[in-house]
Amino acid sequence: MLATGKHTQDSAALFVLAAVSLALITILSVWKLKNFRYRLINETGGAMFYGLLLGLTVKLLWSEQEEHVETIGSVCTCHGLNSTPRVITVNASSHRCLLQENFDPQVLFDLFLPTIIFYGAYTLNQKQLVENLGSVLTYAFLGTLISCMCIGACIYGFTRLMVLSRQAADGEYSLTDCLLFGAIMSATDPVSVLGLLSDLHVDFDLHALLFGESVLNDAVAIVLTHAIASYDRRGAGRVFGPPAFLHSVGFFLGVLIGSFLLGFIFTVITALISFSSSPNPLLETSVFFLLSWSSFLSAEACGLSGIVAVLFCGLSQARYTSLNLSPDSRTRTKQLFEVFKFLGEIFIFGYMGFIWFTFPHHVFRALFISGAFLSIFISRACNIYPLSFLLNLGRTKRISRPVQHFMVFAGLRGVVAFSLAVKDTSSEAKRTILTTTLLLVVFTVWVLGAAADPLLRLSTSNVGSSNDLQVALEQPDTTQGLWHHLDHQYLKPMLTRGGPPLANSLPQWCGEFAQFCSQRSPEDEEQLRDTHQDNSSVGLEKSEVSSTTSDSDSEHRDDLLEGDLGLGTGPSSRPDFPRVSSSSDLSTPAALTLTPPPPSEHGDSGQSA
Amino acid sequence: MLATGKHTQDSAALFVLAAVSLALITILSVWKLKNFRYRLINETGGAMFYGLLLGLTVKLLWSEQEEHVETIGSVCTCHGLNSTPRVITVNASSHRCLLQENFDPQVLFDLFLPTIIFYGAYTLNQKQLVENLGSVLTYAFLGTLISCMCIGACIYGFTRLMVLSRQAADGEYSLTDCLLFGAIMSATDPVSVLGLLSDLHVDFDLHALLFGESVLNDAVAIVLTHAIASYDRRGAGRVFGPPAFLHSVGFFLGVLIGSFLLGFIFTVITALISFSSSPNPLLETSVFFLLSWSSFLSAEACGLSGIVAVLFCGLSQARYTSLNLSPDSRTRTKQLFEVFKFLGEIFIFGYMGFIWFTFPHHVFRALFISGAFLSIFISRACNIYPLSFLLNLGRTKRISRPVQHFMVFAGLRGVVAFSLAVKDTSSEAKRTILTTTLLLVVFTVWVLGAAADPLLRLSTSNVGSSNDLQVALEQPDTTQGLWHHLDHQYLKPMLTRGGPPLANSLPQWCGEFAQFCSQRSPEDEEQLRDTHQDNSSVGLEKSEVSSTTSDSDSEHRDDLLEGDLGLGTGPSSRPDFPRVSSSSDLSTPAALTLTPPPPSEHGDSGQSA
Repeated sequence: MLATGKHTQDSAALFVLAAVSLALITILSVWKLKNFRYRLINETGGAMFYGLLLGLTVKLLWSEQEEHVETIGSVCTCHGLNSTPRVITVNASSHRCLLQENFDPQVLFDLFLPTIIFYGAYTLNQKQLVENLGSVLTYAFLGTLISCMCIGACIYGFTRLMVLSRQAADGEYSLTDCLLFGAIMSATDPVSVLGLLSDLHVDFDLHALLFGESVLNDAVAIVLTHAIASYDRRGAGRVFGPPAFLHSVGFFLGVLIGSFLLGFIFTVITALISFSSSPNPLLETSVFFLLSWSSFLSAEACGLSGIVAVLFCGLSQARYTSLNLSPDSRTRTKQLFEVFKFLGEIFIFGYMGFIWFTFPHHVFRALFISGAFLSIFISRACNIYPLSFLLNLGRTKRISRPVQHFMVFAGLRGVVAFSLAVKDTSSEAKRTILTTTLLLVVFTVWVLGAAADPLLRLSTSNVGSSNDLQVALEQPDTTQGLWHHLDHQYLKPMLTRGGPPLANSLPQWCGEFAQFCSQRSPEDEEQLRDTHQDNSSVGLEKSEVSSTTSDSDSEHRDDLLEGDLGLGTGPSSRPDFPRVSSSSDLSTPAALTLTPPPPSEHGDSGQSA
Repeated sequence: MLATGKHTQDSAALFVLAAVSLALITILSVWKLKNFRYRLINETGGAMFYGLLLGLTVKLLWSEQEEHVETIGSVCTCHGLNSTPRVITVNASSHRCLLQENFDPQVLFDLFLPTIIFYGAYTLNQKQLVENLGSVLTYAFLGTLISCMCIGACIYGFTRLMVLSRQAADGEYSLTDCLLFGAIMSATDPVSVLGLLSDLHVDFDLHALLFGESVLNDAVAIVLTHAIASYDRRGAGRVFGPPAFLHSVGFFLGVLIGSFLLGFIFTVITALISFSSSPNPLLETSVFFLLSWSSFLSAEACGLSGIVAVLFCGLSQARYTSLNLSPDSRTRTKQLFEVFKFLGEIFIFGYMGFIWFTFPHHVFRALFISGAFLSIFISRACNIYPLSFLLNLGRTKRISRPVQHFMVFAGLRGVVAFSLAVKDTSSEAKRTILTTTLLLVVFTVWVLGAAADPLLRLSTSNVGSSNDLQVALEQPDTTQGLWHHLDHQYLKPMLTRGGPPLANSLPQWCGEFAQFCSQRSPEDEEQLRDTHQDNSSVGLEKSEVSSTTSDSDSEHRDDLLEGDLGLGTGPSSRPDFPRVSSSSDLSTPAALTLTPPPPSEHGDSGQSA
């Protein structure tokens, strides 16, 4: 705080200004393009492009100034120090460098990444997710592990080749580095996938499968990266025996479960707070926002994975706490997160472009890069095809070939992979990983993203009918049954004003406890019992609607319908409410079906599906 | 970016987590208090209180660890450096210090101060402001200059006393330092004043006078501080002759006018962009937000005053650009700024409390502090009473004595004074200023803020009738006439879809140019001309309403009425629309009048008053 340099401050303002201008130009040009119905480049691709341009400009300005500066030598002395300073910053560079060295990308990730992930989880269509839960979890957990191993093995082969062809020293790229790269590259990006799905208007369940997988596999990939990096720090060079393996597995499970629980704890806190309050949208939104963000910060402070915590927090907030908010607060909260997520995406993708020219330590290794390009396709294929085959054995209607092809193709990489790669650039191998990751992100977002539209058309025309793209709804399996029981009988009554009375679910002797935990007022109970008798399937949602939206117009009614969460971002099958999805045209997937879904499935299935 | 320490990152997360927890506790406890109708402490006072507690805790933890650390001596070596680093950070302290030293309050101010000031300006009741423009400008400009001189002179007297009583060395406190303190202390705080006015339900025009003055005098105080600090850097010690005086005046005017123009330029850019677009709330809000923030950043990067720029940007955005936004975007934008401003206030006031115990270089000088306490009352009296006397000569109805007393009393200091004082703490005098400023902020917010309610009651009962608190509306004077002409004939037609056709205002030979600059479509023109003939006074506002809100319900209609700007934060005289003001109960001044205003004044006076 003592005498912060005016110079530093000005360059910081200049830097932020450059970032803001970049965001503005991106928004305006993508806006224009959308007006002309040109949908090949979305805002993420645009932000990256302008980031590249900005980086190039800065790079060129540097190289000019660098020559100029080298001829000047000056000795600086220290004035104005009147106490022993605790931190001495020796600025060994000229002015322009401050611009970059002062900026820690961690700020960008701490500020925006949680919001992006939270928004993704919060707006996930939960009904579709629960219906496809088994498949999504299989792809996300087993698939990501397979993908990590595949890429790791493939890249390890290529690094051996590099050693043989004398392009790298022996030991420069360890097996751990290769597995780390595998873990980083296994995270498909919900942001890009969401953009892709939104532009392409794909079917409901393909949407749920792809988006659910891309959200959840982030968690697995992040914890996997965490575990490998932690093993790397502790035991690099030692033999990877059974104890080390068990330790790594324990660490993996510990971080995953710990982060999950932490995220859920914050949902419980939010639920408890949001009950005891009279409705005040500003306060409700602020508390909701701060608590959701706290789940990220707390996890980071505890050494767990913040992103995984905020991911689960988002899923459970959407399921429970959002139902406690007043309609005004719900809209406000959603819009706040939407703006944050929108700006966050632009800033992070812009930074990805910017760093491309300005990061001074890129390491290009042709063989490594070729191996990486090859391996992401191989790993994706090894992940999707065998798992789909296994899943089809248990599904009543199969995941068709075109869907599988499209899923292999739609594994775009983005923000999460970049944030994992940029965390540590301390060794040559790590810097190779960063460079290669950047290349792959640019390639998948620009090339694969732009090619998805024609590919989808081709695959649908090949099979003759777009009906094949429809994935069957799964019958509720054991996992879903257990989940539904826990969710419906215990969590909903405790955390929201919906669900059956808690006293029904608990044994008789828990009556007092049930009364204490139940969040409903006696009037709510009464009303609920009446509606419950009338219509056992959707009565709950109806009573919620009538109790919370009595003062608002009919527009809020469909906000509360299960699965859609009133966010208008899940694929909507109700064309008679066009306002909800049309208000957020650009960034949310106002996906329409290629195949009109049978009306009976979406009418009254509600929570009992 | 190379190998950012995990430790640093964790403590940063911990620090942010502490801040977020502080905000949460503040919000929740103030929320509870408001539920019990206890209104003496508002969220700013609460945040400061919890900040103090947090600071005290950290302080106590430090002092324990400090003893522990002193017994450990260690030598660190540098690993992992593989290139010549440009910036070397020598961390000469133990872990716990990172927590504070890593945090630069500038981040807080860069992020939140613009939003707070922007929101204040954006929600200012422009009709009342224009009606009282002469008085507000007199208080803001002349009053602030008087206040600065008064405090400076008074404090200079006290520092002389300190030298005489051997409590300070000769030359330790220069006249420039005293004037700097005067400038810093002249900024009355819109945030605290807004909170005060909102809780007290004062009259329309007292609201306009006080809030308008507190918003605009920030600009003057900031530029004054800027000018004095700049003079201090250039010419400290030299004789303050006519050239130096002229230079300072020139600098003052240059910065003020430059910042004003810069803020206005960003409004023009926003207006031009917001015309050419199809409505999309997310994009409109993002662009509006980024451009408004850019005005701050650009001014800082240019060496002008960012806060002044964002202040004028807010005033002009509310006047022109907000009329171009779609109703959805308008609500969204307002809510986004509201959340930011609400959280920003809590963070900044919390930080003020926090720094109280953790800033290691407080300088307490009893005489300086006594002088400061005395001088803020004297200066406020020298500012308000003589200027009110002069203004009353020109006003049809006088600013009554009780109003003058209340205005003297209501000069709370807050965020802006603190941000000015904390900017530079390089010398003993500057640190004395920071300590004293903190004391005064705490005193005015807690003591004066809490005492305002009884005082207002006392002053109204003394004079027998609350009618005396009503300030008369001024007759339009020359300033207002000029302003109205410029605003109505040129700016409105160019920047919004309202106002008379530009071709009417410009000479005949400018026809082409008028057509080019006018932003209305031919249909708008047609419709406008019809309504204009019907009712020349309020036809403009009516045509704006009909052209922009045809697709929305009647609630949006009063949003657009001149002066209120649809933000519901100005004092509302329309009890038949309770929703607008009730939705933001805590932080916005849903002020009601003690005296019901004559209906004729607020019905159709519109802009022509």
